[in-house]
Amino acid sequence: MKIYELDDTRYVTALSADMEPALTVPDGAVVRVKTQDCYMNNLRAEDDPRGPAPGEAVGCNPATGPIYVTGVEPGDTLQVDVLTIETGDYASMRISSRGGLMRDRVTRPIMRCVPLTGGEAELGGVRFALDPMIGVIGVAPAEGSIDTETPGAHGGNMDTRLITEGSTLYLPVRRPGGLLALGDVHALMGDGEVCICGLECPAEVTLSVRVLHGVQEPWPMLRDREGGMSVLASAQTLDQACKLAADGMLDYLRARTDVDENEIILLMSLLTHLEVSQVVDPLVTARCRLTGWDVCFA
Amino acid sequence: MKIYELDDTRYVTALSADMEPALTVPDGAVVRVKTQDCYMNNLRAEDDPRGPAPGEAVGCNPATGPIYVTGVEPGDTLQVDVLTIETGDYASMRISSRGGLMRDRVTRPIMRCVPLTGGEAELGGVRFALDPMIGVIGVAPAEGSIDTETPGAHGGNMDTRLITEGSTLYLPVRRPGGLLALGDVHALMGDGEVCICGLECPAEVTLSVRVLHGVQEPWPMLRDREGGMSVLASAQTLDQACKLAADGMLDYLRARTDVDENEIILLMSLLTHLEVSQVVDPLVTARCRLTGWDVCFA
Repeated sequence: MKIYELDDTRYVTALSADMEPALTVPDGAVVRVKTQDCYMNNLRAEDDPRGPAPGEAVGCNPATGPIYVTGVEPGDTLQVDVLTIETGDYASMRISSRGGLMRDRVTRPIMRCVPLTGGEAELGGVRFALDPMIGVIGVAPAEGSIDTETPGAHGGNMDTRLITEGSTLYLPVRRPGGLLALGDVHALMGDGEVCICGLECPAEVTLSVRVLHGVQEPWPMLRDREGGMSVLASAQTLDQACKLAADGMLDYLRARTDVDENEIILLMSLLTHLEVSQVVDPLVTARCRLTGWDVCFA
Repeated sequence: MKIYELDDTRYVTALSADMEPALTVPDGAVVRVKTQDCYMNNLRAEDDPRGPAPGEAVGCNPATGPIYVTGVEPGDTLQVDVLTIETGDYASMRISSRGGLMRDRVTRPIMRCVPLTGGEAELGGVRFALDPMIGVIGVAPAEGSIDTETPGAHGGNMDTRLITEGSTLYLPVRRPGGLLALGDVHALMGDGEVCICGLECPAEVTLSVRVLHGVQEPWPMLRDREGGMSVLASAQTLDQACKLAADGMLDYLRARTDVDENEIILLMSLLTHLEVSQVVDPLVTARCRLTGWDVCFA
């Protein structure tokens, strides 16, 4: 089987309706995508074991792509199966009093290089297991341009911990070819991403793309590796994002089951979970996650 | 070993500084507490298999208690180990357009009786496993009175899915004896409790109480059965509750570890999760949950 390749020198810092494709692949293609970390691989602590930075720019969240998928049109869904995420050997983190939910508690800015070895890392004397996930992944919006710091209905900087190996993302397509781009891999991140970064690292992501014709939801949806199905909604506040995600889940279940809509509401109070993806980007992202009731996207 | 008993006829509908104890127990006591459901066991659907309601009042969230624990004083913590939660044979649910996150989507009010059999239940043709948890559990506030619909620093109606068998709750004591009360057991509830109720059921809860002298956190904390440790904070909005919970976790970790406070902030972005308990009570409840770093309360 042919595996398409895309290098991390082909990236965007905004998802735009008029992006030029960096790669064109057919429906069903497997693509291996190299990604830079969110700092363009240029963040360096003092005495950094990686040596001097290869460039100067820091912090524009580059997303490798865009990838044009032949045959996908507005109104379709692009199904993205995340097959593998291989991180580099080092991750970077930084905090300051200028960003993040804890910015008022930061007393000293930190830039830190964290070695990633054997699926583990250590920080402040605490050792923990890694669980790599993709921070930025999305398609072109219907019009205009959305920078890669911002999440939305097109995907983008959703910083959702559950976008791991073994998960499947359903992205609503608004432009011919979809124009998929991704980056901002984290070797580990907690729900919320409270300090504004995870373990930011370059990576190689292998994914397959599949066109689902004539089916679309207003928000990205995710089938996670545990079998949960989530609506991923972004808004100004968590309260708004949670309501959008819950409404999206109700509509999803109404369209795909024979259960009365009011009984779906009862079931949602038992089987769906409002969860936080991130609270530190220009819009916050929440998810409504269904468990214990298997309702397939298509 | 003596097991103390408290019947569900001894209940309060507000947690008050001046409550009269229903039971007094020593430090270390095991107590078996019967609880009514949140509707005072009086909600009845048409042709309800339980027969007519035993009373008339519906929906005041009765909490059995209060239990006075000898030797616990303001400034201490009451550690409550939840040993068992045995539900009754039936649960009740109701929805209307008057309450809950989905109230704008309810097209027909429902009152429903759901049989609980063999650890499972069925609703709308969907069968699922039960996972009983305690909706209301708290102590007396320093002054005044807080109704049992409302959560806060005293605990109360936190509707936190993780308060299950095998979990340990740490409640900050503000009045002599603590004055513990609990009720509003759910046979199952999702994070958010989006329709405003879970599987509401009468129950028998067995718990042990232990006094931790001279140690206290501003919010209730929970060690869940998976080993996670959460700060449970309530506020007007989810964004506010999440920030309060995260600040509480930072203070908790600063007080109990030698790790630099800025490195704790880095670690929190990796190892803590902002999670939603409920969004439907007079204040909403969020938690900041730490995993993969074992930091004991006392």
